[in-house]
Amino acid sequence: MKYQGIEYFVLIGGVVGLVLALMIYRSMVRQDAGDERIREIGLSIYQGAMAFLRRLYRILAIFVITVAILLGWQLGWATGFAFISGATCSVLAGFFGMKSATQTNIRTTAAAKSSGISGALSVAFNGGAVMGLSVASLGLLGLGMMFLFFGSPEKASIISGFGMGASSIALFARVGGGIYTKAADVGADLVGKVEAGIPEDDPRNPGVIADNVGDNVGDIAGMGADIFESYCGSIIASLAIAATMPLEEARVLTGNSPQPTDALMLFPLLMVTLGLGASFCSIFSMRLFKSLKPSRALRLSSVLSVAVFFCGALSAVLMLGFKLELFMAIAAGSIGGILIGITTEYFTGGKPVFQIIKASKTGPATNIISGMAIGMESCIIPMFLIVGMILTANALAGLYGIALAAVGMLATVGQTMTVDAFGPIADNAGGISEMSQLGPDVRKITDELDALGNSTAAEGKGFAIGSAALTALALFAAYGQAVKEARGVSEFVIDITEVNVVVGLFLGATLPFCVGALTMKSVGRAAGKMVQEIRRQFREITGLLEGVPGVKPDTTKCIDISTQAALKEMILPGVITIMAPVVVGFSFGAEALGGLIAGATSTGVLLAIFMANAGGAWDNAKKYIEQGLVEGELKGSDAHKAAVVGDTVGDPLKDTSGPSLNILIKLMSIVALLIAPLIA
Amino acid sequence: MKYQGIEYFVLIGGVVGLVLALMIYRSMVRQDAGDERIREIGLSIYQGAMAFLRRLYRILAIFVITVAILLGWQLGWATGFAFISGATCSVLAGFFGMKSATQTNIRTTAAAKSSGISGALSVAFNGGAVMGLSVASLGLLGLGMMFLFFGSPEKASIISGFGMGASSIALFARVGGGIYTKAADVGADLVGKVEAGIPEDDPRNPGVIADNVGDNVGDIAGMGADIFESYCGSIIASLAIAATMPLEEARVLTGNSPQPTDALMLFPLLMVTLGLGASFCSIFSMRLFKSLKPSRALRLSSVLSVAVFFCGALSAVLMLGFKLELFMAIAAGSIGGILIGITTEYFTGGKPVFQIIKASKTGPATNIISGMAIGMESCIIPMFLIVGMILTANALAGLYGIALAAVGMLATVGQTMTVDAFGPIADNAGGISEMSQLGPDVRKITDELDALGNSTAAEGKGFAIGSAALTALALFAAYGQAVKEARGVSEFVIDITEVNVVVGLFLGATLPFCVGALTMKSVGRAAGKMVQEIRRQFREITGLLEGVPGVKPDTTKCIDISTQAALKEMILPGVITIMAPVVVGFSFGAEALGGLIAGATSTGVLLAIFMANAGGAWDNAKKYIEQGLVEGELKGSDAHKAAVVGDTVGDPLKDTSGPSLNILIKLMSIVALLIAPLIA
Repeated sequence: MKYQGIEYFVLIGGVVGLVLALMIYRSMVRQDAGDERIREIGLSIYQGAMAFLRRLYRILAIFVITVAILLGWQLGWATGFAFISGATCSVLAGFFGMKSATQTNIRTTAAAKSSGISGALSVAFNGGAVMGLSVASLGLLGLGMMFLFFGSPEKASIISGFGMGASSIALFARVGGGIYTKAADVGADLVGKVEAGIPEDDPRNPGVIADNVGDNVGDIAGMGADIFESYCGSIIASLAIAATMPLEEARVLTGNSPQPTDALMLFPLLMVTLGLGASFCSIFSMRLFKSLKPSRALRLSSVLSVAVFFCGALSAVLMLGFKLELFMAIAAGSIGGILIGITTEYFTGGKPVFQIIKASKTGPATNIISGMAIGMESCIIPMFLIVGMILTANALAGLYGIALAAVGMLATVGQTMTVDAFGPIADNAGGISEMSQLGPDVRKITDELDALGNSTAAEGKGFAIGSAALTALALFAAYGQAVKEARGVSEFVIDITEVNVVVGLFLGATLPFCVGALTMKSVGRAAGKMVQEIRRQFREITGLLEGVPGVKPDTTKCIDISTQAALKEMILPGVITIMAPVVVGFSFGAEALGGLIAGATSTGVLLAIFMANAGGAWDNAKKYIEQGLVEGELKGSDAHKAAVVGDTVGDPLKDTSGPSLNILIKLMSIVALLIAPLIA
Repeated sequence: MKYQGIEYFVLIGGVVGLVLALMIYRSMVRQDAGDERIREIGLSIYQGAMAFLRRLYRILAIFVITVAILLGWQLGWATGFAFISGATCSVLAGFFGMKSATQTNIRTTAAAKSSGISGALSVAFNGGAVMGLSVASLGLLGLGMMFLFFGSPEKASIISGFGMGASSIALFARVGGGIYTKAADVGADLVGKVEAGIPEDDPRNPGVIADNVGDNVGDIAGMGADIFESYCGSIIASLAIAATMPLEEARVLTGNSPQPTDALMLFPLLMVTLGLGASFCSIFSMRLFKSLKPSRALRLSSVLSVAVFFCGALSAVLMLGFKLELFMAIAAGSIGGILIGITTEYFTGGKPVFQIIKASKTGPATNIISGMAIGMESCIIPMFLIVGMILTANALAGLYGIALAAVGMLATVGQTMTVDAFGPIADNAGGISEMSQLGPDVRKITDELDALGNSTAAEGKGFAIGSAALTALALFAAYGQAVKEARGVSEFVIDITEVNVVVGLFLGATLPFCVGALTMKSVGRAAGKMVQEIRRQFREITGLLEGVPGVKPDTTKCIDISTQAALKEMILPGVITIMAPVVVGFSFGAEALGGLIAGATSTGVLLAIFMANAGGAWDNAKKYIEQGLVEGELKGSDAHKAAVVGDTVGDPLKDTSGPSLNILIKLMSIVALLIAPLIA
C-alpha cells in the first residue's frame, strides 16, 4: 500500500501530542500555588469538580456498557468496541482537561500577584493547552487505532461507533455540565448579589465554590467533549463518504492514485495530524509573544496556527499529487470557521451590545426585547457563511468536499480549544482572587484576563456551533451514502414532497424546542433548590452574612445540590435525543429519519446561534456598564439593573440550552449513520 | 355538467352572507352610542383607524398594481386580474370589519352601562359577526367568481393569483398592524404606567387613543386578513391538487363520478359554503344563549357551528355518493384545529401561567426564563397534532386529503372570526369605559368581557397558526403538483440529500428568524418615538399630568407616529418575504425553492407558536396577579412588577413578530405555487 506510512504518522502525532500535554501539565503544576487561603479555595474547587466527574462517570459507565451491548448485539461486537473506545477517549480528554484547569486557576491567581499580567496569561494559557492538546491527540490516537483495525472500505462503518461513543459522552457532559454551572451561578447570584447585596464571588456566599466548579464543569468538560465530538465526527464523515465513493470519482480527486479509496480515507487523518502540528507551533510561539498585549498575543498565535496548517496541508496535497480542490475545500472550512467566530464577536461585543445598553435605559423589558432581536438577527450571517461553505466545498469536491470543509474547520482544534479553555481558567482565577481578598491590584489583572476570556469564549461558542453544523451536514451526507450502500442501490432520495419525510422534518424541527424547554426548566428547578439552600445558610449560620472572622459557609452542600440536580436533570433530554432518531427510523423508515435530521439540524443550528449570541450580548451589556464604558450609566443605575436581568436570562440560554443543541444535531446524525444498515 | 348547480350555490351563499353582515351592521349601528364623552373617544378611535387604513391602502394600491402588471406580463393577464381580485376582497373584508369594530366598541361600553353584561356581550358579538361573515362571504364570493371564470383543470393555476393577492394584503396588514399596535401599546405603557405611574387607559395619556386604534388595526384588520388568506389558501390548494390529480384516483374518491375532476374541484367550495351556513346558525343561536354565562354562551355557539357543519358535510358527501374518506379528512382538520385551540388555552391560561407567576417571585429574570421555556414547551403538542392531521388526512385521501383537512379547519371561519373579533372589541370597550370615567361597576363588566376576549384571542392565535401551517403544507403539496405539470413529468422530487435543497432548507429556516428580528426591532424603534412624544407632551402641556380639567393631550400626534412608523417599517420584512422565494426559485431552481419553503414552514410554525404562547402566558400571569387570583401577591408587589416586565416582552412577540410569521409561511408557498410554471 502506497499510503501505509500515514496511519503510523497519525498515531505518532497523537502520542507526541499527549506527551507534550503531559510535559506542559507537569511544568504548570510546579508553578507557585499561592498562599494557604488560595490553596484552600483551589482545593475545594478541585475536589468539587472531581466529585462531580466521578459521579458523572459512574452513571455514564452503566449507560456506555448498556449501549455497547445493544450495538454489539445488533451491529456486531466490533461496533460495540468502537463505541466504548470513543466514549473512553472523550472521557479521558475531559478528565485531563479538568485536572489541568482546576489546578491552573489558583496558579494563575498566584502568578497575577507575583509576576503581573504576562505571567498570569502564560500560566492560564498553558493550563488551557493541556486541554487543547489532549482533545486533539486523543482524537487522533483513537481514530488512528480505529483506522488500523477497521480502515478498509467494507469495515469503515464500524468507525461510526467511535463517533457515537464520543457523542454520547458529549451529550451528558454538555447537558449535565450546563445545568450544573447555571444552577450554581443563577442561585448564587439571586441570593448573594440581588437579595443580600454582597459582591459576586464573595467568600461569604455558600454558592460561590459551586459556581467556580460549574465554570470548569460546563466550559472545560462540556465544551471539550463537544469539540472532541465535532473533531471525530468530521473525520468519520469524510472517512465514510470516501469509503462509499465510486472509484472513478476517487481516482480523479487523488490525481489517479492507484488506491484512491485508501488515499481519500487517510487524507482527513493526515490533515488533522498536520493541524495538530500547527497547534504545537502556535502554542509554543506564545513564549515569543510575552511582551505583547494579551489579546494581541492570543490573536497572533491563532493566526499562526492557521497559517502553519495551510502551508502543511498545501504541501501535503502537492506532494501526494492530489487535486488542489481538496486543499481548497479544507481552506474554505477553516476560513469559514474564522469568519463565524468574527461575526459572533461582533454581535456579542460590538455595536449590537450598545443597542442593548441603550434599550436598558427604558428598563428590563426593552433590554430583553432588544437582546432577543439581536440574537435572531445574529443568525443570518452565520447561516449564509454555512451555506457559502457548503456550496463552495460541494463545487470543489462534492459531498466529500463538505466533510473536508468540516475537517478543515476543526483541524487546528489543539489551538482553538486551548484558547477556549483559557476563558474559564481566567474566570476562576478572578473568582479566587476575590474570594481570597487579594486586593484591587490583583483583581484588576485577573479582570483583564477574564474580559479577554469572555471574548475568546464567545468566539469559541460560535466556532462550536459552526463546526457542529458542518459536521452534522457531513454526517448527514454520509448517512445518505450508507443507506444506498446498505440497500445496494445507486440512488437514495429523501423527498420532502413525501408525507413521511415532512412528518420527520416537522418532528425534527420540534426537537430543539423540546430540549431547549427541558434544559431551561431544569436550570430553573436546580437554581431554585440552590436559592433555598443559600437562604437557609444565611439564616441559620450566625455571623456568616456579617462576615464574622472564622465563620464559614457550608460550600459542600451547595456543590452537592448542583451535582445531584445536574445528574438527575440530564437524563430526560439525553434519552430523548438518542431515542428520537431510533424511534423515527424504525417506525417511519430511512427517509423519515432523513427528514428528522434535516429538521433538527436547521432549527437546532438557528436556535443555538440565537441563544449563544443573545446570551453573550446581554452578558457584555452588563459588563460594559460595570466597566464604566457607557457614559452616564454606572453600576447600580436603572440601566445596570435592567442589564443584570438580561444577563441572568441569557445565562441558561448561552451556557445550557444552546450548547446542548450543538450535541443534539451531531448525535442524531451519527446515530442515524450507525443504524442506517438496520433501517435501510 | 352534473355539478353545475354547485358554483351558483356557492355564489348565492356568499351574497347571502354579505347581506346578513350588512343587516347585523345596521342593527348594531342603531344601538345607543353612549354619552358625549364616550362618543368623542369613539370618534377619535374611528378616525384614527380610518386614517391608518386610508394611508395603508394607498401604499398597497401602488404595490398591488405593480405586482399585477408583473404577473400579467409573465403569467398572463388573467392571473394579474385574479391577483387584483384577491387583494380587493381581502381589503374589503378588512375594511368592513374595521368599520364595524370601531363603532361597536363604544356601543358595547354604553350597553355595559345601560343593560349589563348580557347586553354588552350581545353588542360586541354582533360587531364581531360583521367581520366574521364578511371574511367568509367575500372569500366565497371571490373564489366562486374565480371558479366561474377559471374553473377548468387547465386554467385552475390562475386562481392561485387570487390567493397571492389575499396573501400580499395580509402580509402588510399583519406586519404593519402589528407594529402599529405594539408601538402604541409599549410606548403608552412605558411612559404612562411605568414612568408617570398613571393607570392603563388613563385619558391623560396621549398614547391611549393610538393604543385603542392599534387593537383594531392589529387584531381586526391584521387578524382578518390573516384568516382570510388561510381560508382562500386552503381552498386554492385543494382546487390545484384536484386539477392535477390522475383521473383514476379522482374517480375512486368521488365514487365513480363521470366528471371526477370537476367534482373534486367544486367539493371544497361546497364544504366552505356549508361551513358558512353553519356559522349563520351559530351566530344567530347566540340570541338563545342570552341567559347563560358569557364564556359558556361563546363555547356553545362554537360547538354548535362545528356540529351543524359536520351534519351538513356528511349529508353532502352521502348525497353526492363520494367516498366517506373525504368527510373524514375534513373532520380531522376541524377537530385538529379545535384541539390546537384547547392546547393554546391551556398553555396561556392554565397551570403553566401559575408556573410563571411562581417564577416571578424571584424577579423579572426568572419570569422571562420560565415564560420562554413554557413557550418552547407549548410547541410540542401542536406539532404532534399537525403531524397527526397530516398522517390521517394523507392516509384517507392523499395530498388532496391534507388540503381538505385545512379546508375543514377553516370552513366555519364565519364563527371563528366572529369570536376572534369579539376580543379586541371588548378590549376597546374596556379602554373606553376607563377613559370616559364610567366608574368601577361598568369597568367590572367590561373587564369580564375583556378577560373572555383574551382567552378567545389566545385560542384564535393558536387556530391562526395551526390553519396557516396546514394551509402552507397544502399549498406546498400543490406546488409539487404544479412543477410536475409544468415539466410534463410524472415525478417531482425535492431531495434533501442534494446540496441545492439543503441550501434552500437552511435559508428558508433562517427567514423566520430574520423577519422576527426585523419586526421586533421595528416595534422597538417605533415605541421609542412614541415614548419621546408622550414624554414631551407631559413635559410641555402644563396641567396635563396633574389632570387639570379641560387640559387635553394631543392624541392625533401619537396616532400619526404609530401610523407613519408602521407604514415605513412594514416595507422591508414584506419585501424580503415576497422576494425570497422568487430569488431562490430563479437562481437555484424549483428543488431549492421547495427546500426553502419546507425550511421556512417548519421553523416559522415553531417560532410562531413559541412567540404567541409565551406572550399569552406572560400576559395572563400579569393579569392573574392583578385580579387577585394569586395568594399573597397583589398589584404593585415585586412579583407583579416582574410579571409586568414579562408582559411587555411578550407584547411584540405575540402581536407583531409571531403573527407576521403566519403570513410568511403561507405567502412563500403561494408565491412558489404561482411561479412554478416559470421556474420549472
